[in-house]
Amino acid sequence: MIPTPYLLFLGDAPDALAGKVAQGIKDWRPELCIGQIKLEGCNADMGLQDLTIEEAVSKGAKTMVIGVANRGGFISDSWREVIKQALESGMDVASGLHNLLRDDIDLVETASLNERELHDVRIPSIKYPIANGVRRTGKRCLAVGTDCSVGKMYTALCMEKEMRARNMKASFRATGQTGILITGNGVPLDAVIADFMAGSVEWLTPDNDADHWDLIEGQGSLYHASFSGVTMALVHGGQPDALILCHEPTRKHMRGLPDYQQPSLEELRDTALTLARVVNPDCKVVGVSINTAALSEDEARALCEETEARMGLPTVDPFRHGAGRLVEALG
Amino acid sequence: MIPTPYLLFLGDAPDALAGKVAQGIKDWRPELCIGQIKLEGCNADMGLQDLTIEEAVSKGAKTMVIGVANRGGFISDSWREVIKQALESGMDVASGLHNLLRDDIDLVETASLNERELHDVRIPSIKYPIANGVRRTGKRCLAVGTDCSVGKMYTALCMEKEMRARNMKASFRATGQTGILITGNGVPLDAVIADFMAGSVEWLTPDNDADHWDLIEGQGSLYHASFSGVTMALVHGGQPDALILCHEPTRKHMRGLPDYQQPSLEELRDTALTLARVVNPDCKVVGVSINTAALSEDEARALCEETEARMGLPTVDPFRHGAGRLVEALG
Repeated sequence: MIPTPYLLFLGDAPDALAGKVAQGIKDWRPELCIGQIKLEGCNADMGLQDLTIEEAVSKGAKTMVIGVANRGGFISDSWREVIKQALESGMDVASGLHNLLRDDIDLVETASLNERELHDVRIPSIKYPIANGVRRTGKRCLAVGTDCSVGKMYTALCMEKEMRARNMKASFRATGQTGILITGNGVPLDAVIADFMAGSVEWLTPDNDADHWDLIEGQGSLYHASFSGVTMALVHGGQPDALILCHEPTRKHMRGLPDYQQPSLEELRDTALTLARVVNPDCKVVGVSINTAALSEDEARALCEETEARMGLPTVDPFRHGAGRLVEALG
Repeated sequence: MIPTPYLLFLGDAPDALAGKVAQGIKDWRPELCIGQIKLEGCNADMGLQDLTIEEAVSKGAKTMVIGVANRGGFISDSWREVIKQALESGMDVASGLHNLLRDDIDLVETASLNERELHDVRIPSIKYPIANGVRRTGKRCLAVGTDCSVGKMYTALCMEKEMRARNMKASFRATGQTGILITGNGVPLDAVIADFMAGSVEWLTPDNDADHWDLIEGQGSLYHASFSGVTMALVHGGQPDALILCHEPTRKHMRGLPDYQQPSLEELRDTALTLARVVNPDCKVVGVSINTAALSEDEARALCEETEARMGLPTVDPFRHGAGRLVEALG
């Protein structure tokens, strides 16, 4: 667990895209965000109050989160200065960078001296069990995609937000670095050792109230040659009662795989459902989530209507049009 | 690569089963086995010449392989003495034990002083790439099972042996610890980091002659809730042209999962083929391998005939009756 609330570190982000981790936290957990801190040359802005380290601490910030990608793949001297200052002032520091904070001797020593923690969410912090497949109480919904990066995390977060607004019991369960930084906990599934993948997902989504829903963040795709094993572990470890099919309609080929095309929603439905029913015979596909960010409003509406008619399932872009119909489809 | 030939270390194996790694090496790579070495109390025997360390070295042994499970989960003093002697006499030492040789300071120092290598095949020795899904030359056959431990490794090894006897180009590709010790190389897939699983299988089965077959050792099962993600990485990373369905007919439930039953061969066929065709549209299911070890000769014959009629596929126990028909089914 990463202590909250957060100070969001934007560094010298060259543009808004470089700050997308910070943006995700701001969009989905605004109540956890005390303020932001920038370095010279920063072109990202979360619309939060600009704070110094001292101001953030005095306002109660417990962790400074690195909300920006690092240029050149290393932690620069200017970043290191601010990170050390945060540790010395009493904050933990959390990061999803490929370069681990714990591999920087200077930062490790500063954290140790000040009895603060460095949270590298890129890699697992605990040893997960092997999955046992035992049925768990409570309900689980998993987003599965026709490809990687089609909006599975946003779909789950939109549904959690809508369910909480309706006073339903719901927990977004993060399985990737950004999701973990947003919620303060989760499993960095892509960095888990093969034998323990499904077990880590079981650990993440334990027994719960009968009317509680876990909204499990998907990873990869059953149809993605590089990462399908990770997706499979989510389908079997997650023991889903409900699947949401996620799709991005403008993709020219599978992400990173020029020789591969996305499957149809029908193919994804049949394959995912067959596999999910191995662990949960009652699993159903309940809806379709289409990422229409690249479409006009008219195009988006038309595509959702056409897909809904074809698939016989509620079809929306939950980020654009709200997740209400997907939530209602959970039954 | 582990240097060959081998001296097989049988330690104080309480029974034949404890020496099953040594037995596998002896069964499948007899030409690599110079001899065996036992400690007091050893009840396993490979039918090889009993040699001292010195005799083994003088006969050309390059690596002493730990061919036995360790009692109590630690490397005993009596084992350590022999392992050190092997290193001091000029041999490498290879092990698939959960306790790593490299975690034993005494052994690490001895290996370093004598410029020998400790080969812990339990964990990967290299950093694998992320899979790219690009079609490779040569042919690949993957054994997939209705459950874990149903004879996938033996099926692949039987086929390799038969193909080599027929002067066909064939390579068994090990994906587990025993297989790696048998062949001297491979990928310990269950210990690979999630994101790199499929990439490690691509690395293991690279471009080859058009008439060369990789016989890929399967792992887990697409229907096993604990390990299906590992199997999925084999199906997509292995890019199989041919699948062999493997089955053990006397299993009461899925291995380690009392709440789960094995799928039918028809279910396995349909699921595995659908997934394999994502990466290789020409993939075919070519045969069925039944592990009849627990059946009488009559029962075994009857089950194979009945399964063959039902599935319309050559069905044999390759270990009992030979792998010829499976090899012919590759086309």
